[in-house]
Amino acid sequence: MEIVLIGAGNLATNLGKALFQSGHVIKQVYSHTEDSASALGSKLNSPYTADLTQVEKKADLFIIAVKDSVLPSVASALKEGREQQFFVHTAGSISMDVLPFERRGVLYPMQTFTKERKVDFSVIPFFIETSGKSDYGILHRLSLTMSDTVYELNTADRQYLHLAAVFCNNFANHCYNMGAQLLKQHGDIPFAVMMPLIEETVAKLYQFTPAEAQTGPAVRWDTNVMDRQMDLLSGQNDMKNIYQMMSQGIRDYQNKKE
Amino acid sequence: MEIVLIGAGNLATNLGKALFQSGHVIKQVYSHTEDSASALGSKLNSPYTADLTQVEKKADLFIIAVKDSVLPSVASALKEGREQQFFVHTAGSISMDVLPFERRGVLYPMQTFTKERKVDFSVIPFFIETSGKSDYGILHRLSLTMSDTVYELNTADRQYLHLAAVFCNNFANHCYNMGAQLLKQHGDIPFAVMMPLIEETVAKLYQFTPAEAQTGPAVRWDTNVMDRQMDLLSGQNDMKNIYQMMSQGIRDYQNKKE
Repeated sequence: MEIVLIGAGNLATNLGKALFQSGHVIKQVYSHTEDSASALGSKLNSPYTADLTQVEKKADLFIIAVKDSVLPSVASALKEGREQQFFVHTAGSISMDVLPFERRGVLYPMQTFTKERKVDFSVIPFFIETSGKSDYGILHRLSLTMSDTVYELNTADRQYLHLAAVFCNNFANHCYNMGAQLLKQHGDIPFAVMMPLIEETVAKLYQFTPAEAQTGPAVRWDTNVMDRQMDLLSGQNDMKNIYQMMSQGIRDYQNKKE
Repeated sequence: MEIVLIGAGNLATNLGKALFQSGHVIKQVYSHTEDSASALGSKLNSPYTADLTQVEKKADLFIIAVKDSVLPSVASALKEGREQQFFVHTAGSISMDVLPFERRGVLYPMQTFTKERKVDFSVIPFFIETSGKSDYGILHRLSLTMSDTVYELNTADRQYLHLAAVFCNNFANHCYNMGAQLLKQHGDIPFAVMMPLIEETVAKLYQFTPAEAQTGPAVRWDTNVMDRQMDLLSGQNDMKNIYQMMSQGIRDYQNKKE
């Protein structure tokens, strides 16, 4: 397919590379900064522009992969002269209907992207939806050229999926960060010692649900340990509050199940 | 070494197996339930007892691996007739001094143990301390027969290490559980779709600190997305509160750094 890629951030960069490697032609790359546009253009063997008015008028597909906050304005700015084109965005938490096009859709590859890290797209689940049936076929086939796992998901459910991803990625990562801070403050043990524990926590999820896999003082409601640990956090109220709330959440969930 | 193992729970079972496989002799296994004692005894090719008064009086090392809550009473009950023996416990959050023996110590293998899962002890970090120098040598050599990573750590710092482990394991796992609940409630997407995201979140930690690796709406302080996601959680105040507090924590940490 001939694709115009709007955006040159982490997601656009990784997605562009995956499309390019799957044999698609990136007809043009747009970024609002010349340097980013040029850098990604050269990676994708593609013309580029930093001027929205110079974006191509025709392609098999326009993919808008920009920050959520500017997505509506970028989409609106592209409307004129492209009313009949097929536009998708890549934002997990945003409705398909933010796109002012009849042929519109969403292509959400659920992953955390970092420019410096190469990502294996074939294992990333894609969640897609479109306004029209034939465009669904187009987007579905395109997704399958990059990933083995493609689900149709409407905007309402996708917003919950994205929220679940925030818990599983951002919030779990913040738990790691709090652990790292505690280690840095006491005994100067390198964070690397945590990796076998973290890896095992994740490995269990292939065998058990997270609820089944839960261990530790909160699930046993071992108030001796919990009180002592809360004391260790006195003077760090942010962590102490999170400790309390997470412990209560673990406990409440166990009680709900029983 | 000839070792008496007090306890037959998850940790005792996994530790006993690791000791046995490293060529040590489990002289006896004790558990307060006959079935557990017998089951572990047969795995470790070892005599067993469910009667504390029948525990051996002499061994190179006594390892008490029981629930934190019963550790003090079990240790006290074993004192008489074993005053000169070398006792260690395996509890990350409990002081060495809970053991009423002159020769005392701690052998804390930091991992989450599940009976049904085999654990590779060689990658698990061990944290040890002892009351005496020569006993430190004994415990250090023993640990190195099981693990490649052995640190000396005093009780005060070990309590923070254990607390860090609670954040990295229990609380991260509760984040996975909340994600799983959201998926179950909306769209019926299997939790397995989260695994590539979760794996990538962990894989980044080999390259970046958790703070550097952080992504998502909170670190960008994208209040549009955050407000929408809070709305999605209305009616689930436990998760909503955690959402708010974790987001604030991510934000505060970034500000502290700058």
